[in-house]
Amino acid sequence: MNTLDWIGVDWGTSHLRVWGMAGGAVIHSAQSDQGMGRLNASEFEAALLALVADWLPAAKITQVLCAGMVGSRQGWVEAPYRAVPCTPLGDTLVRAHTHDARIEVHVIPGLKQPRPADVMRGEETQIAGYLALNPGWDGVICLPGTHSKWVHVSAGEVVSFQTFLTGEAFALLSEHSVLRHGLSGWDAAGFAQGLEQGLERPERLLARLFTLRAEGLLDGLAPALARARLSGLLIGAEIASAKPYWLGQTVAVLGAGALSRLYVQALDGLSVPVTAHPADETTLAGLKRARARLLQQENLCAN
Amino acid sequence: MNTLDWIGVDWGTSHLRVWGMAGGAVIHSAQSDQGMGRLNASEFEAALLALVADWLPAAKITQVLCAGMVGSRQGWVEAPYRAVPCTPLGDTLVRAHTHDARIEVHVIPGLKQPRPADVMRGEETQIAGYLALNPGWDGVICLPGTHSKWVHVSAGEVVSFQTFLTGEAFALLSEHSVLRHGLSGWDAAGFAQGLEQGLERPERLLARLFTLRAEGLLDGLAPALARARLSGLLIGAEIASAKPYWLGQTVAVLGAGALSRLYVQALDGLSVPVTAHPADETTLAGLKRARARLLQQENLCAN
Repeated sequence: MNTLDWIGVDWGTSHLRVWGMAGGAVIHSAQSDQGMGRLNASEFEAALLALVADWLPAAKITQVLCAGMVGSRQGWVEAPYRAVPCTPLGDTLVRAHTHDARIEVHVIPGLKQPRPADVMRGEETQIAGYLALNPGWDGVICLPGTHSKWVHVSAGEVVSFQTFLTGEAFALLSEHSVLRHGLSGWDAAGFAQGLEQGLERPERLLARLFTLRAEGLLDGLAPALARARLSGLLIGAEIASAKPYWLGQTVAVLGAGALSRLYVQALDGLSVPVTAHPADETTLAGLKRARARLLQQENLCAN
Repeated sequence: MNTLDWIGVDWGTSHLRVWGMAGGAVIHSAQSDQGMGRLNASEFEAALLALVADWLPAAKITQVLCAGMVGSRQGWVEAPYRAVPCTPLGDTLVRAHTHDARIEVHVIPGLKQPRPADVMRGEETQIAGYLALNPGWDGVICLPGTHSKWVHVSAGEVVSFQTFLTGEAFALLSEHSVLRHGLSGWDAAGFAQGLEQGLERPERLLARLFTLRAEGLLDGLAPALARARLSGLLIGAEIASAKPYWLGQTVAVLGAGALSRLYVQALDGLSVPVTAHPADETTLAGLKRARARLLQQENLCAN
């Protein structure tokens, strides 16, 4: 009991999270800021071992399943994208080379869509986890974030998806643009205003952005109202543009943080049936699913 | 002949340009990077004198007329906005305090619009110059730039205007976003593609931005095509959104650089009657107009 069977890893651009697993139960967890973005190819193994070395039994090889940007061209090993339509997890994992004989590292490939061109890495594992937790579910999955994604799922397959630069645009505008002087804090009334404007006239985004600056200068617009309105403008414009995804569909928002709550609020206001699910749960469920498939394959090969 | 009468100054956030004038003729010119953005209130006089001190006759006081961000709250002296509808230049200039007794510095106020909130500083002088060069002109003036502006002019007055964050968005996205790795150079075919997409579906901007990244990863999109397409997407979205300004109007684009040529190309493609005019010419003409009004007022007071 409670001995380590395998390790699940969520390795994004800016974060690294690991779970030590005994079967389906989490017995260890840890995280660091050693994301893909700050590591060279030769540094991934050390970054992983810094978190998990103490968990590893000496007598056996422990399988490590990794999702996320760790599989990009700038990552530990490139795990080529699989093309939609396809199931979120395929049969192929990509082995990363290791020096420590105690670990065997497998990377989960991301998904690509030829037209309109789009890519994901990491989200496919969350989608697989959501479907594992909700078998037979059809609908649209929304994954808020730096690059938020809308994903059409049917019959267990990712049919199509679309990525929006919304979160990154918010960060750039609030930290580096002329607007930055007039933005701080959060006033929910500002989000509601911006959301309405963004949903109604998404094509006016570039003008609405400067209006925030001008209202600050002329009317003393409160920084907390302005920052929340900026968020509402961007999310509203995204949701308006994503209408072909959510119209007439059930939407599952993966993520339970403040950002996801804003998406849920927006969709709820449009009378879209929407549910929210913690991203940790779905990521972990997806990693378990990938581990189960790996075991199945090994058994097939052994027989 | 050829003795200095007055000095015209175009003082923006990032640049300082000065012209030494004998009546209406330029006899000196100079520029530096000592824009408003890098100066404290106490540093403006020295930044100006660094360029013009050698031109100044000792025996008399030389008037200096300044346009631009130098009149903002963070500038040399705050020149309160005048509210549209109004002529681009009013009767009030704001004196900046100086230590050097050889100069008398006047700052031209910018314009404000209460709803939708908007502001300009510097462009009002270009507009006044354009109208001085084209008396009786009615139509729409477009001023491309970091914060591009569309201005409805009728019967010598600025009726309304709208600012777009287009230029700043291009700079942020091409220098600081995830797109930056795949952007360099310029391929005009990319601009045409982006312009068409931006004009047709301006509301899809946040998604089109990520498509650039995905095409870079999946299709090896050439950096010169990608950078020009980004510009086309943004300018197309701006022009689509500015349609209430240009529809059925004659448009004068103030500026003759590469950026202005892109706006002319775009408007031309929409069969909008459009002309382009060097920004230096219109700025200088506006400064002359402001100087003439100052002289008129002084004569009125003297009589």
